[in-house]
Amino acid sequence: MPGMGFEKYRPFEGPDLSDRTWPSTRINTAPVWCSVDLRDGNQALIEPMDAARKMRMFKILVQMGFKEIEVGFPSASDTDFNFLRELIEGGHVPDDVTIQVLTQAREHLIDRTIESLDGAPNAILHLYNSTSTLQRRVVFKADRDGVKQIAVDGARMVADRISKCGADNLRLQYSPESFTGTELDYALDVCEAVMDIWQPTAENPTIINLPATVEMSTPNIYADQIEWMSRHFSNRDAVILSLHPHNDRGCAVAATELGLMAGADRVEGTLFGNGERTGNVDIITLGLNMFTQGVDPTLDFSDINELVETAEFCNQLAVPERHPYAGKLVHTAFSGSHQDAIRKGMDALMNANENTWEVPYLPIDPGDIGRTFEAIIRVNSQSGKAGAAYLLEADHHVRLPRAAEVEFSGIVQREADTTGKEITSQRIWELAEAHYIIPAGRFELVSFDVAKASRSGDGERVTATIRHDGIDVAISAVGNGPISAFVEAMRNGFDLSFRLADFGQNTRSATSKAEAAAYVELVVGKGDNAKSIFGVGIDTSITMAPIRAVISALNKL
Amino acid sequence: MPGMGFEKYRPFEGPDLSDRTWPSTRINTAPVWCSVDLRDGNQALIEPMDAARKMRMFKILVQMGFKEIEVGFPSASDTDFNFLRELIEGGHVPDDVTIQVLTQAREHLIDRTIESLDGAPNAILHLYNSTSTLQRRVVFKADRDGVKQIAVDGARMVADRISKCGADNLRLQYSPESFTGTELDYALDVCEAVMDIWQPTAENPTIINLPATVEMSTPNIYADQIEWMSRHFSNRDAVILSLHPHNDRGCAVAATELGLMAGADRVEGTLFGNGERTGNVDIITLGLNMFTQGVDPTLDFSDINELVETAEFCNQLAVPERHPYAGKLVHTAFSGSHQDAIRKGMDALMNANENTWEVPYLPIDPGDIGRTFEAIIRVNSQSGKAGAAYLLEADHHVRLPRAAEVEFSGIVQREADTTGKEITSQRIWELAEAHYIIPAGRFELVSFDVAKASRSGDGERVTATIRHDGIDVAISAVGNGPISAFVEAMRNGFDLSFRLADFGQNTRSATSKAEAAAYVELVVGKGDNAKSIFGVGIDTSITMAPIRAVISALNKL
Repeated sequence: MPGMGFEKYRPFEGPDLSDRTWPSTRINTAPVWCSVDLRDGNQALIEPMDAARKMRMFKILVQMGFKEIEVGFPSASDTDFNFLRELIEGGHVPDDVTIQVLTQAREHLIDRTIESLDGAPNAILHLYNSTSTLQRRVVFKADRDGVKQIAVDGARMVADRISKCGADNLRLQYSPESFTGTELDYALDVCEAVMDIWQPTAENPTIINLPATVEMSTPNIYADQIEWMSRHFSNRDAVILSLHPHNDRGCAVAATELGLMAGADRVEGTLFGNGERTGNVDIITLGLNMFTQGVDPTLDFSDINELVETAEFCNQLAVPERHPYAGKLVHTAFSGSHQDAIRKGMDALMNANENTWEVPYLPIDPGDIGRTFEAIIRVNSQSGKAGAAYLLEADHHVRLPRAAEVEFSGIVQREADTTGKEITSQRIWELAEAHYIIPAGRFELVSFDVAKASRSGDGERVTATIRHDGIDVAISAVGNGPISAFVEAMRNGFDLSFRLADFGQNTRSATSKAEAAAYVELVVGKGDNAKSIFGVGIDTSITMAPIRAVISALNKL
Repeated sequence: MPGMGFEKYRPFEGPDLSDRTWPSTRINTAPVWCSVDLRDGNQALIEPMDAARKMRMFKILVQMGFKEIEVGFPSASDTDFNFLRELIEGGHVPDDVTIQVLTQAREHLIDRTIESLDGAPNAILHLYNSTSTLQRRVVFKADRDGVKQIAVDGARMVADRISKCGADNLRLQYSPESFTGTELDYALDVCEAVMDIWQPTAENPTIINLPATVEMSTPNIYADQIEWMSRHFSNRDAVILSLHPHNDRGCAVAATELGLMAGADRVEGTLFGNGERTGNVDIITLGLNMFTQGVDPTLDFSDINELVETAEFCNQLAVPERHPYAGKLVHTAFSGSHQDAIRKGMDALMNANENTWEVPYLPIDPGDIGRTFEAIIRVNSQSGKAGAAYLLEADHHVRLPRAAEVEFSGIVQREADTTGKEITSQRIWELAEAHYIIPAGRFELVSFDVAKASRSGDGERVTATIRHDGIDVAISAVGNGPISAFVEAMRNGFDLSFRLADFGQNTRSATSKAEAAAYVELVVGKGDNAKSIFGVGIDTSITMAPIRAVISALNKL
């Protein structure tokens, strides 16, 4: 029965923040990014990363420009501890990169964590305990004061041990874990109690990280929670307000964006949104969302394929085909009307004076993230006419005239409808060749010569030998140019009735051979019986290509 | 260089709607759902669905409870046209289901579309043309009036042909395609012009569908756009305001939710978010987001595995591992602290008086969507102690005492750290057997008998034969019960020094054999040298199970 069972769930109650200001703001600068791929991401993998995978992930994060990287939970697993030691002792951490380690608020874990940081140039010690109403009740079986005491005790243990920590520059971070399920006044109270001990200043602020450990509501409510917190800290200047959203309702990116609008300074997330359950917020999407609004994301996404390959290798999970920006299909248009609009948009962009990116259905220039245009337009039964013409032009450097495009799209559409399959670019070329490039048949060009006509002003004289039904026939005529002369010679030589209605040519300079492709439209018959025949010729000579195009067309008569 | 290239993008300018009301509202009822899997979803596939796949998709959509289903673009492809005819002529459309078809505002396409609907019981004819500033400029090369005229002409053509349409009950829908890139006043003007021709009423409303054809901004701006439109229609009662979001910025679910809060009545989307590029909005996530807030989604998601299988078969695209609600990993906790909290939350729920679902890290009861609990807790090097104990109990019906859990988690952790692999439930059982169930070794139970002691009040007398280093030894003692008597007999018979510190037992009723599992903690040594040894015994007899547990523990001495 539809909907059965919904009664056992309760709606999430957000704060009453009718004077919220975030909906009228927008994101103008990138936040401080902290990657948690090696911690939250790693702990959610079927097979956690081995040392080689961790190192590869760490290196690409540094290469992308991350300045804060949570590298693990060293007190919880030897793998994490040993990796951290390898990073520090091997000198793998650049001077401008801070490594972050997570610990629960328990003495032996804090001790082990402090030990793990020995010799680190820059480190963040990240203390957390869970504060939600639900976890207080069922996990800690403690009241507000009892759970606050866990935080306070942990903060004090950390404060007492700072002098023993062998990191050159140690900063502190506190997370009221399961923040989204915590009453705001209580979350604030716990955070303030921790800061009372740590005594942060504007010069030496504490990172207060407010996780949507579980995404519990529409993203506007998370933004309300963040704005409320941001407004209520007693010393906001001493706080770096950090977001750590998960994606249980599929809205982590939105929650983060609205949270930044609500006043947050920093975001913890992962590449492609790997992480516990439905994942952490995806920094690739967040960053490129900023990029495509003209905001410097401060991270380098220019080789998205390398990022995909690295994440897939390290996480042993595929980046989905429809992942924003990075998926294999996301720059692809199969729909005919979309293909047509993209083609026109690209043309307009090419002819525009300014560089602003504006192409229908393409929010990003695939070239900006290292994607080629090959994938943009793919052809199947949903594609209509534009796709086949686009691929013929983009991949095979043959631009058909408008009327031929319509004819050719019908040929491709019939094949797509019949096979039910995608029509590849290679297959499109085969179909184009079969229908438009016909060098032999009724007519075959054996030889061709062009010369200035004897009398000045007479134009050019064409002399050619045509193999016609197996017999070589010499033809000749004078015309304004070689094409009109050849057309005239063919008409006279074989008693044909047709006229040259259209002609075009483009270089195929992108191919290795410096060829030209020429197109002709011949019209036979008159009035209602008039019929267009299209032919294509390819030759290294721009004189010969159209001649071959005429032969191709005449072979279709 | 990080961030290079962002300068060529411009930020999206939203409307100035400082008196917006949507952020203070919430979703209390499900919208009208319209599946566009067979149209927008289908046209974005590498290989569009064949007739068999289309039929399977149609049937599951009906089975889920969709009342409106866009089935194709019949004027654009014969495949779509023929499928629609098969649906109608084969009587596959239930009386309470409306089929929807899309057409561009061009005469021959409208004619063909009207033809395709002949004999349909309930149909929506969905007319669209693109209205964005960009498409007006680069695709249509027309001004506001010119593009509005396309809509007006299309609307009139439709109005003129309604009487010819062979559908029993025909409703009309108009989409200003690329709405999000269209000036709001102009979008409204075009929609109103269409409605001036169609003359909708509250009883016979027009569906006005406002697509985020490309997602161009943070989702709050889409909500502002929707609220602005909803407020400005001259006859709002005659409009069913419909959303059609795409996911280019990864925020389609959020945009839809905020759009519903802003006043929309209807949502077009697909299962698991298949669709052009990054996809259409995902109705599975939207519906289950409502479900977990106690709102009847009016769709049936109770067998999510069947939905996944059907979508994967029809679309030939995998549903990702971290897809909200449906992904293979989204109910899984690998992290030890999460596992511990889930276990405690489940215990609390079991003991609670009311049925409200509240378990840490699990926003939905996996059982509500046909998922078993098996997948919730999986063990690797990130898991700490709770996971192994949970699986031992959940899958193998052996609940270790607390101190043994700690010991066992160390064993599992070492294996996870060494292998770097997931430790499967089967492997956990093998480790538990190897460490705790040791029926033969230094001691082996050959025979065992228990009887009331001869004098009343003396308790019970145990007589047993123990094979000890190959020699059968008869032992006997009296105790309060068989366990204490057996412990005493072992101590005396083999001159052992140990005491029974803890004992527990549970039935393994969930297994096919009606066995019991018993655990003992023996302590050897004294003071600082005291050491606990744990043993487990399994037997169909609740008397024998603890005796075997003692033997297991003694074999570890």
